[in-house]
Amino acid sequence: MAEVNIALIGYKFMGKAHSNAFRQVRRFFPGKLVPRLKVICGRDRAGLKAAAQQFGWEEIETDWEKVVRRKDIDIVDVSTPGHLHHSMVLAAARAKKHIICEKPLGNTLKEAREMLAAVKRAGVLHMLMFNYRRIPAIAYARKLMRSGKLGKIYHWHGAYLQDWIMDPEFPLVWRLDKKFAGTGALGDIGAHAIDFAQYLNGNITEVIGHSTTFIKRRPVATRQGRLKAKGGPEKGKVTVDDDTNFLARFRNGSVGVFESSRFCGGRRNYNTFQVYGSKGSLAFNLERLNELEIYNSEEPAGEQGFKTVSVTEAVHPYVGNWWPPGHIIGYEHTFVHAVKDFLDCLDKGRMPRPNFEDGIQNQAVLDAVERSAASRRWTEVTV
Amino acid sequence: MAEVNIALIGYKFMGKAHSNAFRQVRRFFPGKLVPRLKVICGRDRAGLKAAAQQFGWEEIETDWEKVVRRKDIDIVDVSTPGHLHHSMVLAAARAKKHIICEKPLGNTLKEAREMLAAVKRAGVLHMLMFNYRRIPAIAYARKLMRSGKLGKIYHWHGAYLQDWIMDPEFPLVWRLDKKFAGTGALGDIGAHAIDFAQYLNGNITEVIGHSTTFIKRRPVATRQGRLKAKGGPEKGKVTVDDDTNFLARFRNGSVGVFESSRFCGGRRNYNTFQVYGSKGSLAFNLERLNELEIYNSEEPAGEQGFKTVSVTEAVHPYVGNWWPPGHIIGYEHTFVHAVKDFLDCLDKGRMPRPNFEDGIQNQAVLDAVERSAASRRWTEVTV
Amino acid sequence: MAEVNIALIGYKFMGKAHSNAFRQVRRFFPGKLVPRLKVICGRDRAGLKAAAQQFGWEEIETDWEKVVRRKDIDIVDVSTPGHLHHSMVLAAARAKKHIICEKPLGNTLKEAREMLAAVKRAGVLHMLMFNYRRIPAIAYARKLMRSGKLGKIYHWHGAYLQDWIMDPEFPLVWRLDKKFAGTGALGDIGAHAIDFAQYLNGNITEVIGHSTTFIKRRPVATRQGRLKAKGGPEKGKVTVDDDTNFLARFRNGSVGVFESSRFCGGRRNYNTFQVYGSKGSLAFNLERLNELEIYNSEEPAGEQGFKTVSVTEAVHPYVGNWWPPGHIIGYEHTFVHAVKDFLDCLDKGRMPRPNFEDGIQNQAVLDAVERSAASRRWTEVTV
Amino acid sequence: MAEVNIALIGYKFMGKAHSNAFRQVRRFFPGKLVPRLKVICGRDRAGLKAAAQQFGWEEIETDWEKVVRRKDIDIVDVSTPGHLHHSMVLAAARAKKHIICEKPLGNTLKEAREMLAAVKRAGVLHMLMFNYRRIPAIAYARKLMRSGKLGKIYHWHGAYLQDWIMDPEFPLVWRLDKKFAGTGALGDIGAHAIDFAQYLNGNITEVIGHSTTFIKRRPVATRQGRLKAKGGPEKGKVTVDDDTNFLARFRNGSVGVFESSRFCGGRRNYNTFQVYGSKGSLAFNLERLNELEIYNSEEPAGEQGFKTVSVTEAVHPYVGNWWPPGHIIGYEHTFVHAVKDFLDCLDKGRMPRPNFEDGIQNQAVLDAVERSAASRRWTEVTV
Repeated sequence: MAEVNIALIGYKFMGKAHSNAFRQVRRFFPGKLVPRLKVICGRDRAGLKAAAQQFGWEEIETDWEKVVRRKDIDIVDVSTPGHLHHSMVLAAARAKKHIICEKPLGNTLKEAREMLAAVKRAGVLHMLMFNYRRIPAIAYARKLMRSGKLGKIYHWHGAYLQDWIMDPEFPLVWRLDKKFAGTGALGDIGAHAIDFAQYLNGNITEVIGHSTTFIKRRPVATRQGRLKAKGGPEKGKVTVDDDTNFLARFRNGSVGVFESSRFCGGRRNYNTFQVYGSKGSLAFNLERLNELEIYNSEEPAGEQGFKTVSVTEAVHPYVGNWWPPGHIIGYEHTFVHAVKDFLDCLDKGRMPRPNFEDGIQNQAVLDAVERSAASRRWTEVTV
Repeated sequence: MAEVNIALIGYKFMGKAHSNAFRQVRRFFPGKLVPRLKVICGRDRAGLKAAAQQFGWEEIETDWEKVVRRKDIDIVDVSTPGHLHHSMVLAAARAKKHIICEKPLGNTLKEAREMLAAVKRAGVLHMLMFNYRRIPAIAYARKLMRSGKLGKIYHWHGAYLQDWIMDPEFPLVWRLDKKFAGTGALGDIGAHAIDFAQYLNGNITEVIGHSTTFIKRRPVATRQGRLKAKGGPEKGKVTVDDDTNFLARFRNGSVGVFESSRFCGGRRNYNTFQVYGSKGSLAFNLERLNELEIYNSEEPAGEQGFKTVSVTEAVHPYVGNWWPPGHIIGYEHTFVHAVKDFLDCLDKGRMPRPNFEDGIQNQAVLDAVERSAASRRWTEVTV
Repeated sequence: MAEVNIALIGYKFMGKAHSNAFRQVRRFFPGKLVPRLKVICGRDRAGLKAAAQQFGWEEIETDWEKVVRRKDIDIVDVSTPGHLHHSMVLAAARAKKHIICEKPLGNTLKEAREMLAAVKRAGVLHMLMFNYRRIPAIAYARKLMRSGKLGKIYHWHGAYLQDWIMDPEFPLVWRLDKKFAGTGALGDIGAHAIDFAQYLNGNITEVIGHSTTFIKRRPVATRQGRLKAKGGPEKGKVTVDDDTNFLARFRNGSVGVFESSRFCGGRRNYNTFQVYGSKGSLAFNLERLNELEIYNSEEPAGEQGFKTVSVTEAVHPYVGNWWPPGHIIGYEHTFVHAVKDFLDCLDKGRMPRPNFEDGIQNQAVLDAVERSAASRRWTEVTV
Repeated sequence: MAEVNIALIGYKFMGKAHSNAFRQVRRFFPGKLVPRLKVICGRDRAGLKAAAQQFGWEEIETDWEKVVRRKDIDIVDVSTPGHLHHSMVLAAARAKKHIICEKPLGNTLKEAREMLAAVKRAGVLHMLMFNYRRIPAIAYARKLMRSGKLGKIYHWHGAYLQDWIMDPEFPLVWRLDKKFAGTGALGDIGAHAIDFAQYLNGNITEVIGHSTTFIKRRPVATRQGRLKAKGGPEKGKVTVDDDTNFLARFRNGSVGVFESSRFCGGRRNYNTFQVYGSKGSLAFNLERLNELEIYNSEEPAGEQGFKTVSVTEAVHPYVGNWWPPGHIIGYEHTFVHAVKDFLDCLDKGRMPRPNFEDGIQNQAVLDAVERSAASRRWTEVTV
């Protein structure tokens, strides 16, 4: 058993989720390398201190440049807003740290490419936190699709819909500001929908999209955060999309239809897809993440139908380490699984997946969608 | 009470559904004008005779041109494949008959325009059989949306998915031949998805779509029909789309995402939509046509959610004439309701809806989608 | 082709449903014997006349005793409240008519036994209208269970729940009066739940139940009917159960749990069961009567789950005669299927099922449940 | 901030769940008292050592009597099989430790009464681990019911169904042995169904049940555990129920119907209830524990229906401390919430709920059901 020292940059929503993953991973997935929650990094000392204590970090630090250079740090985990990923990752790579980075990789494809180049040059391990790949139902779907259970794929529909900013009085938090977030619904949640698609169905080659901002001006934020955001009397311009949809073609010949929106009332966290192939179909909904709907067109006539499989069995990926069948797991477990895989890779000297190459592949689609929305033309995805 | 004499052209799937509607309407919706099933028309005398007897028609006729000119006929119902609509409607209009026509109005927008001009010139009543508008849940959804219950509409997703031609050995029936059917998935089922959207959310102004034919050659049909189709050893080219999807903008500023496909395994008749507005959302699925999902964002925090309403109550449109609450109705009832409305209009001298103007509006979208798929550009819908 | 003359006694809810069945059966199920809607019988001449015209009957008659003796009548259909079944069936049997009778057979087990004796003596065909057996999903479930697909059966749960009398101001209609209805929830809807169980899982041998009347006094009815009932200022005593539940043992060793209630808010017509065997399980809900949930425990580990089968395929019982797969049917179709089977039996000289023997078997359970509720003891079912 | 030292007895399924709760509680629910995982106790030193390391306990001990007397221990948590609860709790009470005990309280009502007497005498805090009360949806349901949202309650149906021992070759583990487990399905899972009912709807006053053991002999277990159980060639007698159902009456006049079974194929962990009142209804299913179905009969006619509420909002109990709306939690979180409440009570010197009095109330129902199954008579619940 050996400890690996972690530095985490960012201590809010993602910081909390990642902290939990590092703390929990060896409680349920015993293994040689044990993460040590060494130092957590952020700008606000008071908030940071509280977070460190609550989440179980040994030290705090407000200067991220210092942190990434610390000799005793093995892994740097970048969980900040997107506009900071680029410089942090470049610095961490320069310091030869292994890197975990929240999605999206950068705020632009150019940034993302530079980040990939940096980690390659440094020869470090890198992982992009598309944690939803580690949902047992998704990992199982991957297995089914790779084994050919669905046959030749024809049609993919992915939709990630939320509703948390529908109130016109919801303030202009950083996620609604292009400078910090890059894009809105597209990069925040659409990126997950794209990752599902490319993870399970292979690369997207061309797209055409349209983006809309329904509420164009909002109160300037006086407090950030999803549940605690507050706005003042002044209004500012929303510079990202509220809603972006696109059509796609996949390399394998199948067609794709994608929706991402923060204006779909009643959809709190509705990350769903349906995929249809010559032999079968699958359907998934993040709000019921323990379930996978499976259709097998090779069953006898009259006995066919979508089957709701509770992906909580010992034979399913990851989940046997938790609880007995039917005892469901939640959102946070996906991060634990991701960290588990990262540590396994570190132990064996293998590159984790999804890594920055997958990040580029994702970002290239985001980039093409954005360009297509501007040009109103079909646009090739270029990595 | 007065009888109105009906001539029905077409005696297969739609012929059966329309016959049933004429026979049933006054059993459940008493009214002044009573349809009399006077004459049914088709090409194959033997099949026609069997149909007439089974469906309850008084006479048969193999020459449709004779039929539409008969003095004793009040209403001509055109339930043939799409390529015949144009000439039949023109002839019926010339003979001053009131007309019911199956969708799509014509096989091209040009045809459709000529048909509208013809019925206008003739001054007859005309109805396009978008029977799904007469599903009680849809009529109820219309009421909710018109009354502003959903507020300003942001996002529409419509998908009509089926799977009946996925088998590559399924033969080249007329619905797979551009000459007879105009288009494939787009016009056959996508047209219904578009009609839902325009009926409930207003007109679509521009679109961009992509169409795919997955199985390019199929056995030449030796027997037509959905369930009884057979193919021979020879193969022929599929000339319509298997799968067409498109993005749209509505006049009211909302965005639309549409799927239509006959290659989605497990979806037998999956005509669904979800619509999201500033105050609420709706979701519908034709395979559970008695239900409407309603979300109200103005309910107190913590009490919000999609509600499954059984649209089978006396207060709901149409359905109180059938059975008590919770005693569901089926597919065929939608035709009965359509005929009921047509007769009411005839009685009161009012133009029914949807009529050929709605048909044009629908066809204009189909046409724009087709053109956009060819040009790969956003295309304006021009009526 | 030959006509058989029908006399229908009762012209309200069930009268409407049966009339429709006679009218529709040959339109979708061609066959040698064709029912002729000869005469409809009831007490109120005005209402009766309107019904005859609306439902398509040739003649009306207010004296049922005359009707059952008419020479030209082949089949007498008794669709009146339960307290009249006994005398009508006895008279019809005496006149050697074939008989269709609404459930429950009689209002007491004694009555039911006499009715069976009478039809046996007369040598006529007899059918009890447990129409729900003719739901395609149920007929299909029967096939699956008979073929051993579920293995040895362990556990049955049946619940028929409604909510139409929850309002304390809902009046004391005949269904709430023991004199006319025999029992309340138990006989009206519980009888259907019992029929599902005995049809699919074999006979029940012993039971213990408890019955409750939540609203003990109600306004005396000034107008009958489910949707149109009205009450006056005077109150009267409710003499039947609002809610009856019971435990059961089946002859095959499995256990049963049954609920029937008219006080379950939100359940408009919730007739459901789940059955569990050594190899598989089924679940059904009348409000989605086109679907059957099937679980197969012999599928590989990790791939098991309840599958929603749309029982609308050509290979399923009855339903291929209606519409293509996924085009659902409704409540009324179950009566059409029942009449179809009756006519087939008449043609071939075979006794239909369910017949009065099944009715006795059902009534014996109702009787045992009632006795057990009174005695508070397990009670044997004695036919 | 102050530490409280925990001793946990039992290190398997429940030991793992409780350990996690102690470790996690302050990460998500900051508070004054911080649990310290002092010592874990079990019989097998090797297994225990592995568990201690994996779950994060400081020390191990194989002699439970020593543990409960340790001066430095504040809380003893009894997570062993039921037959050991009695002596452990008595010893812990004697040593004046606060006690958390897994359900059922004892293996008999007599044991349970003695345990309650002991903790009362000792004046210590006691909590019974009916962790499902801490599901946010359940805590929210409680709030709704207490506030009168459902009106007068009429009907309760609870079913806890599983399928993990359906294979006749599944071995005779301790849960199938009356000596260790007391009862089978009834006490293991039926107890949870009863707890939901009494927590939400008040006490049950009388019951009648029937119990069945479908597989009477099984291979003797050579390895225990739910997923890892193995059997040898020898067979032994199953001495507990596979399936127990009962009817009940509640003090508030409502009726209850309960199922508990380990022989319901496809139901992995199906702990469900539906409750119906004069103003509304609720439905819940543990396999989708983040959702609550709510029906409100006071909504306008035509707009009524069951609403699926995602109980993951900041306004809902507990869940706001985890993740944003729609980001679901899982099974293990219920234990965290229970420990949080226990620590809050300890801090404020209040008795936690559910405590041993609730345990007695639960056990009294189990006891009455058992007696009623033996006597075949309605049996009063006597605490």
